[in-house]
Amino acid sequence: MDVSAELQHASQAAESATDFSELIAELHRGLPAHCVLSRPEEKKPFECDGLTLFKAMPGLVVLPENEEQIIHVLKTCKKFSVPVVPRGAGTGLSGGATPHSQGVLLGVSKLNRIKRIDAQAATAIVEPGVRNLAVSEAAAAYDLYYAPDPSSQIACSIGGNIAENAGGVHCLKYGLTVHNVIRLRIVTIDGDIVELGADAPDAPGLNLLPAFIGSEGMLGIVTEVKVKLIPKPQLARVVMASFASVEAAGVAVKNIIGSGIIPAGLEMMDKRATHMVEPFVNAGYDLEAEAILLCESDGTEAEVQDEIGRMEKVFSDCGATRLQVSQSEQERLRFWAGRKNAFPAAGRVSPDYYCMDGTIPKSQLAHVLGEMVKMEEKYQLGCANVFHAGDGNLHPLILFDANDPDSVRRAEDFGADILELCIRVGGTVTGEHGVGLEKINQMCSQFSREELDAFSALKKAFDPDMLLNPTKQIPTLNRCAEYGRMHVHGGQIAFPDIERF
Amino acid sequence: MDVSAELQHASQAAESATDFSELIAELHRGLPAHCVLSRPEEKKPFECDGLTLFKAMPGLVVLPENEEQIIHVLKTCKKFSVPVVPRGAGTGLSGGATPHSQGVLLGVSKLNRIKRIDAQAATAIVEPGVRNLAVSEAAAAYDLYYAPDPSSQIACSIGGNIAENAGGVHCLKYGLTVHNVIRLRIVTIDGDIVELGADAPDAPGLNLLPAFIGSEGMLGIVTEVKVKLIPKPQLARVVMASFASVEAAGVAVKNIIGSGIIPAGLEMMDKRATHMVEPFVNAGYDLEAEAILLCESDGTEAEVQDEIGRMEKVFSDCGATRLQVSQSEQERLRFWAGRKNAFPAAGRVSPDYYCMDGTIPKSQLAHVLGEMVKMEEKYQLGCANVFHAGDGNLHPLILFDANDPDSVRRAEDFGADILELCIRVGGTVTGEHGVGLEKINQMCSQFSREELDAFSALKKAFDPDMLLNPTKQIPTLNRCAEYGRMHVHGGQIAFPDIERF
Repeated sequence: MDVSAELQHASQAAESATDFSELIAELHRGLPAHCVLSRPEEKKPFECDGLTLFKAMPGLVVLPENEEQIIHVLKTCKKFSVPVVPRGAGTGLSGGATPHSQGVLLGVSKLNRIKRIDAQAATAIVEPGVRNLAVSEAAAAYDLYYAPDPSSQIACSIGGNIAENAGGVHCLKYGLTVHNVIRLRIVTIDGDIVELGADAPDAPGLNLLPAFIGSEGMLGIVTEVKVKLIPKPQLARVVMASFASVEAAGVAVKNIIGSGIIPAGLEMMDKRATHMVEPFVNAGYDLEAEAILLCESDGTEAEVQDEIGRMEKVFSDCGATRLQVSQSEQERLRFWAGRKNAFPAAGRVSPDYYCMDGTIPKSQLAHVLGEMVKMEEKYQLGCANVFHAGDGNLHPLILFDANDPDSVRRAEDFGADILELCIRVGGTVTGEHGVGLEKINQMCSQFSREELDAFSALKKAFDPDMLLNPTKQIPTLNRCAEYGRMHVHGGQIAFPDIERF
Repeated sequence: MDVSAELQHASQAAESATDFSELIAELHRGLPAHCVLSRPEEKKPFECDGLTLFKAMPGLVVLPENEEQIIHVLKTCKKFSVPVVPRGAGTGLSGGATPHSQGVLLGVSKLNRIKRIDAQAATAIVEPGVRNLAVSEAAAAYDLYYAPDPSSQIACSIGGNIAENAGGVHCLKYGLTVHNVIRLRIVTIDGDIVELGADAPDAPGLNLLPAFIGSEGMLGIVTEVKVKLIPKPQLARVVMASFASVEAAGVAVKNIIGSGIIPAGLEMMDKRATHMVEPFVNAGYDLEAEAILLCESDGTEAEVQDEIGRMEKVFSDCGATRLQVSQSEQERLRFWAGRKNAFPAAGRVSPDYYCMDGTIPKSQLAHVLGEMVKMEEKYQLGCANVFHAGDGNLHPLILFDANDPDSVRRAEDFGADILELCIRVGGTVTGEHGVGLEKINQMCSQFSREELDAFSALKKAFDPDMLLNPTKQIPTLNRCAEYGRMHVHGGQIAFPDIERF
């Protein structure tokens, strides 16, 4: 059964079956009435996150205003054995915040204060509901910014970024969320406060911070975050390079990295994507090219000049058919505008789109794109490709129609097929969007029983009753048996000879 | 009771009390006879690691030759409920490999193959017993190297580096071990094989790799490691800057980082350290200066020229009394030679030295150095300071005489006092040497009960019988009660106002 069908089934079963009156009464002892939403019309806006393919009506929505209230919510849910699904801004793309029909949806959007910016130490302390871009906006006064920049950065929250270990166009050089968060204050399901991480580079004790980041709300609720800020570069410029084939562009990506250059961003768009985007954005993309690369250099003027020169040389040597370097900040932003608006542009050519997220070895790029063309035929759905080429992170956009149940089913199967292909070529089922509900089945292919056991052991150490975001991220062995897949790495096979990245 | 006294006590109690004959017989079923050492003269060389202050005769020493034998050793120890202390090259400085008098010391030195170097992907797959420097030597043919460079890099092993999350002079720019290891293959105490990490930047599932790195052999035994290699920089140059006070040098460090420069290395030596080292190394250090800084830039010629200029400007603005830039690779290495030989130099002025490791906010540098001068008087022992200034990681060298029990006790108390001071000013008890046995008491001050509980929960998830390196890194609540210390951060106090880094 597909995940969306399962959800519908569970929602129907739960409808009016669960009586939350005692739970609500207990919640009201620690929260103002307006923070607990129980009427269907109040709960409706929370029925899905950015993965609109999956929907479920939450049992209850709770929107606490501070840490004390979060402690009360968690202690209450623990007491009543009610599942808790945490939610940031709800922009996630893997269903990490898809509600539990018999559980509490705990939104942190009201914890939205920027508590402190320390310009000298280049750090900020913020609450989890603060928007990603708001951190950089507040830091701009000190010529600092927060590096991870997911496409949803106008809307997405730092709390959600932590849950999903969000990336972005610039993460190749500046790292994912995990590389830019210094400390976390969390509340466990028991209502205990624990601080993870340390200001020093090497934390004493076990380093649990990176395990928490990307744990999709399964280990605790974040109430305070200390992030690293970095100085704004003096200058940034982009080289736009055209290639006559996706293969040639793939080789160019490999050679850029191989030459020791770490671009501030290195993105690829295929012809279908540039044709989808150009009429909408007028970014000036080469519509003749089979693939274009956007490659950014940032730093001091001397550094950028030197690096741009080296980038152009690598691209020329790889047979670039056209090279263009941004001559002004305005032009640089225009080059990026097309890439950043690829998703909205998809909305203009198709009623709905399903944004996939998987990572493959860069050497497999041409093969994987070829296979996807075959899948388009098999599933009778279009697919455009934009991706973080520098780290092999694909974002195929599957174009479908949500009002046509058959189209939904085909989109979901198309997506699952892409993920299995990623694993088969030595890649992984997620790049930066997390596992959530969307990729729960493919986790059975990705990991061995012993590896899934290790995940479960950590999960149980923090949440023995399995109340925090259950059924997400870590599949049960039953689910894997049903899915009928064996893992393809791990166990006795160490590092298969297939090139990974 | 001091840790060294405890150890002596335990060793005496264990002497000839434990009969390992059944264990040895079982071990021989899976290991050749020469891999199991039981005679005192065979075991003697393993009685301590680089922290010679702590010694204990291991119950048994086992030196397996491959993964299969490691599995057999661990399954056997599990069956007999015998503690296992893992050991790399034995160069660790916090007693992480101090033996258990009733346990097995498991050395991985015979797993010393470099299995594969992939120049295109810039990665290497090595066994845990491979020496740190051997990786860079093997990668040199491809103009690549392995970045983390602890002072012991000629001798220390990759396995030990992982256990301690080792750093080095260049980790300010290139990261600690945790930032340079991509994947690990480990054997659990049950004999299961688990792979941690992923080739992709964002691993699916829970990110257990960073929790394993620095876990001091408490979670499993590493059998295979995939590390990142980086291209050798075209050029590297060092600025040597003199200052009339430690305070002024501290401000210069802060301003370098604050200006957005990330030096390839940024080290400070105080006058006592330069005077100790200069006669031995002839590095050309300014013996008039109260403190000197060594600040390295690496990259392309254009980048280095630009960055060195900016570094010189910051130092001049901070009142540097002398500035000297290395004019050749030979001169650069000479500047570093003094820093890298500070420990051996200490051996020339004192029979023994105790190298401490703690991290403090850079703003506290002058205060902490002042307090240490008072401690020299209190404990009647000398102390020289060399440190990774860029990340506030101190390495005070306490000079003492191991043949004088009173001197040993004073050295140990001096060290404990320094660590408590680090915590008090908002720092941590370890920079890059780990906790081991040495800092086990101070962990009670560093963390709250809930935080220590979280560490224990992860430990128990991997090793429920607590057989892997017991009594290290994570103190029991009993020990903390006995030590009589409360934690100073965590719990209800979020981020105290004192500046951390």
